[in-house]
Amino acid sequence: MLTEFIQEVKPAIDAELRLAVTHPEFRSYPGLETILRYHLGLNGNGGEATDQGKRIRPLLVLLAGYAVSGNWQPAIPSAAAVELLHNFSLIHDDIEDKSEIRRGRETVWKKWGIPLAINAGDALYTLSYDELNKLCKTVNENAAYRSTQVLIDTCLHLTGGQHLDISFEKQHILSIDSYWDMISGKTAALISACLLLGAIAGNASVGSEKSLADFGRFLGLSFQVLDDWLGIWGETQKTGKSSASDLVLGKKTLPILYGVERGGRFAQRWIKGPIESNEVPELTDILIDEGAQAFTEAQAERLTEQALRSLKAAGCKNKGEEMLNELALSLLKREK
Amino acid sequence: MLTEFIQEVKPAIDAELRLAVTHPEFRSYPGLETILRYHLGLNGNGGEATDQGKRIRPLLVLLAGYAVSGNWQPAIPSAAAVELLHNFSLIHDDIEDKSEIRRGRETVWKKWGIPLAINAGDALYTLSYDELNKLCKTVNENAAYRSTQVLIDTCLHLTGGQHLDISFEKQHILSIDSYWDMISGKTAALISACLLLGAIAGNASVGSEKSLADFGRFLGLSFQVLDDWLGIWGETQKTGKSSASDLVLGKKTLPILYGVERGGRFAQRWIKGPIESNEVPELTDILIDEGAQAFTEAQAERLTEQALRSLKAAGCKNKGEEMLNELALSLLKREK
Repeated sequence: MLTEFIQEVKPAIDAELRLAVTHPEFRSYPGLETILRYHLGLNGNGGEATDQGKRIRPLLVLLAGYAVSGNWQPAIPSAAAVELLHNFSLIHDDIEDKSEIRRGRETVWKKWGIPLAINAGDALYTLSYDELNKLCKTVNENAAYRSTQVLIDTCLHLTGGQHLDISFEKQHILSIDSYWDMISGKTAALISACLLLGAIAGNASVGSEKSLADFGRFLGLSFQVLDDWLGIWGETQKTGKSSASDLVLGKKTLPILYGVERGGRFAQRWIKGPIESNEVPELTDILIDEGAQAFTEAQAERLTEQALRSLKAAGCKNKGEEMLNELALSLLKREK
Repeated sequence: MLTEFIQEVKPAIDAELRLAVTHPEFRSYPGLETILRYHLGLNGNGGEATDQGKRIRPLLVLLAGYAVSGNWQPAIPSAAAVELLHNFSLIHDDIEDKSEIRRGRETVWKKWGIPLAINAGDALYTLSYDELNKLCKTVNENAAYRSTQVLIDTCLHLTGGQHLDISFEKQHILSIDSYWDMISGKTAALISACLLLGAIAGNASVGSEKSLADFGRFLGLSFQVLDDWLGIWGETQKTGKSSASDLVLGKKTLPILYGVERGGRFAQRWIKGPIESNEVPELTDILIDEGAQAFTEAQAERLTEQALRSLKAAGCKNKGEEMLNELALSLLKREK
């Protein structure tokens, strides 16, 4: 069911993204449009699927719109807006993190330099507001105004989370409280916004809106915690590529922060400085012994349950709800 | 009259900017707010005037609102929005241009590093949309929606102009046509938006809106051309500080591009590479001989006249119009 839905909506999402970057204002500035098309994977005739990312966020928007109203079409501008926003944040994050590769290709700053990349990100961000203003036509002025406010609040949350993330890079130790602040800004805020924007475009009741936004927030948090779990005990790690472990990368993920707060053998090693690849197997086991794995799994479990309960509370009781449930489970159970 | 108006509105602009950066979403992210307050010059109790810039743009917004409705208060969110937008673009421009000093203090990237600076710029940009959404309360939903669209179009224009500007840095020669594209994006679009936003907040007629927007556009273009003139024949240059001349800085300004297009002695020297300070007096004279000064003055004159004619066409016929006229003349005649 979900697969058919994706096949149905995917061309509409891509068409809207193409329309967004072919903005009349860019006529005098074709070079800028070229960068945006490259980053969004819209260069080829049909678009290269591998260059585009998974388009999970616009899918969540359309599913929410469909769940509350039986109709996904009015939410298309909102779906495009979150994908543009997500991609804008990737352009800037890649500069901030010095990442040279994204989706198997050179990142924008690596290809065009930092100045043009910062500027292209700003333009892409602007286009997401441009999309939301189209809701005046597909829905009404109030939906446009409210959706814009959602995007604003989400971006303030995102930039707040990113601020913490960058600041924490220089810090060797981080509290679990700060971790939740960071990921609620960096990951959960946008996922929550996807559901809320879909609900607004579908003219949902206040109660359904709130429940769907909660579903998105818990889904985002749970997804991040699972990602942290995979960063230490995932397939890549199991097959022995210890260099890819979050331990070596020095990331401040939940199991690592739990180990640090425990103050045991793991913490004693962690505070001494960078972990080498050959230490990974032992430290991974120590984390299990000290309860970090069980703690992380319990958190993921709790958040997943809260997500599914919130989805149910939205009271859609239709195919839309079923597909959101299916998508959530597929996101949360991947590879595990 | 203008001086009293400025004294009356300045505290209201600053209060709104303070309110904007004290956003509830930042509660978990105080470090981000610190950066924004620093950049806006809002750190001290009363704000340090020298750190704040001239606040010309919000003043234009309020004057336009006052000219069309006799009331500047409803336009306060729009005034704050343009100042936030302007300051966001300065944070990103300073990174892109590698500028280390702004208003006599270290720039944000120099003080906090590029990653936090890019991110702080994104947050500041977001706050300008947040301000415009407040028009729902001070005016109505339609004003908020339309003003947001103005901000969007302006930013697409700004990023387009900035894209050209950065791209042109590597180019030694630039056509005068491309010059107009660049400055219409980089300078004129935002000034035009200030007037248009003030007119929208003041519920102006369609005709007045258009005329005021035109006034802003011509004012912005004229201002830039005058700035170009000063960059070669201004006071600093006259008093012998040749190193500050746009000739040495290698800027692509109007008199220089005119000289290049003329293809005479100036052009022959320009294409050979960087100009030294000791060559400035002779090249400045050659530019005059080849007609670049007269051409630049004629363009400034033409644009100023178009600006003042557009202002008159808006048909406000009141103190607001007089003050806009006064401000325009003071901006355009400074130092010359």
